[in-house]
Amino acid sequence: MEVEWTEKGVCVDGFKAAGVRDGKYGLALIAADRLCAAAGVFTKNSAVASPVLWSKKAVKGGLSAVVANSGCANACVKDGFNEVRETADAAGRALGVQPARIGVASTGIIGRRLDIKIVERLIDEASRKLSTGAGASMDAARAIMTTDTKLKQVSVSFKGVEVGGICKGAGMIAPEMATMLCFITTNAELSSRELQAALDEAVQKSFNMTVIDGDMSTNDTVLLLSSGRKKCRIRDFKTLLGIVTTELAKMIAKDGEGASKYIEITVTGAKDRTSASTAAKAVASSPLVKTAFYGVNPNWGRIMSAIGSKLRINPMKATISFTSRKGKVAVFDRGRIGDLDKAREVLKEKDISVTVNLRMGTGEATAFTCDLTEEYVRINAGYN
Amino acid sequence: MEVEWTEKGVCVDGFKAAGVRDGKYGLALIAADRLCAAAGVFTKNSAVASPVLWSKKAVKGGLSAVVANSGCANACVKDGFNEVRETADAAGRALGVQPARIGVASTGIIGRRLDIKIVERLIDEASRKLSTGAGASMDAARAIMTTDTKLKQVSVSFKGVEVGGICKGAGMIAPEMATMLCFITTNAELSSRELQAALDEAVQKSFNMTVIDGDMSTNDTVLLLSSGRKKCRIRDFKTLLGIVTTELAKMIAKDGEGASKYIEITVTGAKDRTSASTAAKAVASSPLVKTAFYGVNPNWGRIMSAIGSKLRINPMKATISFTSRKGKVAVFDRGRIGDLDKAREVLKEKDISVTVNLRMGTGEATAFTCDLTEEYVRINAGYN
Repeated sequence: MEVEWTEKGVCVDGFKAAGVRDGKYGLALIAADRLCAAAGVFTKNSAVASPVLWSKKAVKGGLSAVVANSGCANACVKDGFNEVRETADAAGRALGVQPARIGVASTGIIGRRLDIKIVERLIDEASRKLSTGAGASMDAARAIMTTDTKLKQVSVSFKGVEVGGICKGAGMIAPEMATMLCFITTNAELSSRELQAALDEAVQKSFNMTVIDGDMSTNDTVLLLSSGRKKCRIRDFKTLLGIVTTELAKMIAKDGEGASKYIEITVTGAKDRTSASTAAKAVASSPLVKTAFYGVNPNWGRIMSAIGSKLRINPMKATISFTSRKGKVAVFDRGRIGDLDKAREVLKEKDISVTVNLRMGTGEATAFTCDLTEEYVRINAGYN
Repeated sequence: MEVEWTEKGVCVDGFKAAGVRDGKYGLALIAADRLCAAAGVFTKNSAVASPVLWSKKAVKGGLSAVVANSGCANACVKDGFNEVRETADAAGRALGVQPARIGVASTGIIGRRLDIKIVERLIDEASRKLSTGAGASMDAARAIMTTDTKLKQVSVSFKGVEVGGICKGAGMIAPEMATMLCFITTNAELSSRELQAALDEAVQKSFNMTVIDGDMSTNDTVLLLSSGRKKCRIRDFKTLLGIVTTELAKMIAKDGEGASKYIEITVTGAKDRTSASTAAKAVASSPLVKTAFYGVNPNWGRIMSAIGSKLRINPMKATISFTSRKGKVAVFDRGRIGDLDKAREVLKEKDISVTVNLRMGTGEATAFTCDLTEEYVRINAGYN
């Protein structure tokens, strides 16, 4: 399957986008040329933000557009649902579609009231700027950035079927997602049910395997819209969607708050996929593991301990290896300690793969994370 | 019940102690004048260290002494059990007791072989220094320190019943304990079964509610030895033991790696005690909450989000308050935001209490933690 990488972002066949900013507030607008079949995945946090409640309902009837703001999470605010309704109303007026068919998402500080005047003005401005092309999608991606330092956009196509996505999220990223917003568009002609099944599977292997700090946010939202302009085999669509979500997940990990290194953790030989996933996420979530990578410290014992605390393993059967551009080294192999000087060389690189073979079965999973640095602490101590 | 605070540490009625050091290695020895009824609580990490396996078995037949080393965890080492046996043999020879009746514990780097020559020499030296009195117990407490900056020792008495403890543990502290060693002695005449039940309960409310970074270690060990010299009501003993374990748990949190603030989190009004405990630990484990405290940032939204990610709650029914020497302020009360300037003043102090009332039931629990600072990252990036 020869997948082509494109520059369209979410502006694939049938979609326009725009992004605008005003001080702390940013606003992204994605509009389809018709009512789209849609699917969504949302935070499981019970302190859920009002826009999530809105979008959960909206997605069921299909979506014509998505409006997302940064600068205010609209979470844990009394009657915050009113501001969501007004946001959807404003977008509906500007685009000439039903407000109920508009997905709404927010990100930012919890507990502050959404400034609806600013949001309404930004919606008007964005709706006039709606256009196709990479620039428009990039504007949208930029508008929802908070502590992100890099714009996150991916799009691919295969035989005319296009899938594109933008996302934000640099901290509070955890299994089951966390302050991440992601919007994906496609022209694949598929039912809402097919889209939802494909999205669930893709999110499970990508965003739900991305760990920055283990916190799950009140606002996580992934929305998938299809203009249905192109016939498509479900298998091909799943491949394309998997590429988009995995690439975006990696971008989130690489842009983790304060991150100096990107770390991919693959566990093989686990009893089953669930165990492998638990083990990979345990390693990715351990502050001790993450600070060790920051310190170029081949402390494989912390990796073993992180897995052992969540899973029944036999360390004496396991192998732990580090890989980077500098090569590959088995730091621990069934009781034998490897070349730790070589390991330090390998860990000096910015992109590191950790593989742990537990030799207990055939389960395999990969988690995406970054190191834990003083900068993470500074960012989150000061974010206000 | 008028509890008296003493200076004896583990050198209560019937016990002697000593502590010695040689470079990276430290060694603590606690010896009873008889075979003691004993109880233990150990790590649940499946990558368990050899001394834990030894002590789990030893404790069942009662203990005459405890020998603990810092500098090497003796975990994930092939045939590491041999070194544990040799350690117990050496202590048995020095004290004239059966090796099988000696508790052994280790703390330090994972994956390194224990230098048995050094340990044997330190055991000889310590056995010659064994004595009663606060100085001896403090020497023992000092000998097992790793990244600890403060010696941790507590002892109390009531009507001649004495309970004393020492412990170490500054990082890798998590629910279900983690690289913490704790040794408690008493003269209370109680059976092993009574001691074990009391210890289980005390650990549940103290060390298992102490969170530094959420990692669970390979070596956690709490041992309780009783010389049985004094008749005692079980209720009184539980009170004394609870004071000792809670005070030691607070000392661990206060001395958390890189900590600049001590934070006590009490959740009330939860459905039951288990829910309250889950909620309190969720807050205590959140890097975002911990960095916010470091930054004197009254970001109550992160507290709500941390609880909501683990528990079904209604934020609009909850109250979150901060208390310190500067006073008390409700930062969020059922949808109303409190005085955040006042909150900032309150958070400037070093000892902070957070209370969250969920108004869902009568469950209550307290967790002990500290803030997350750049210094934590530096310590753990460099620890080698």
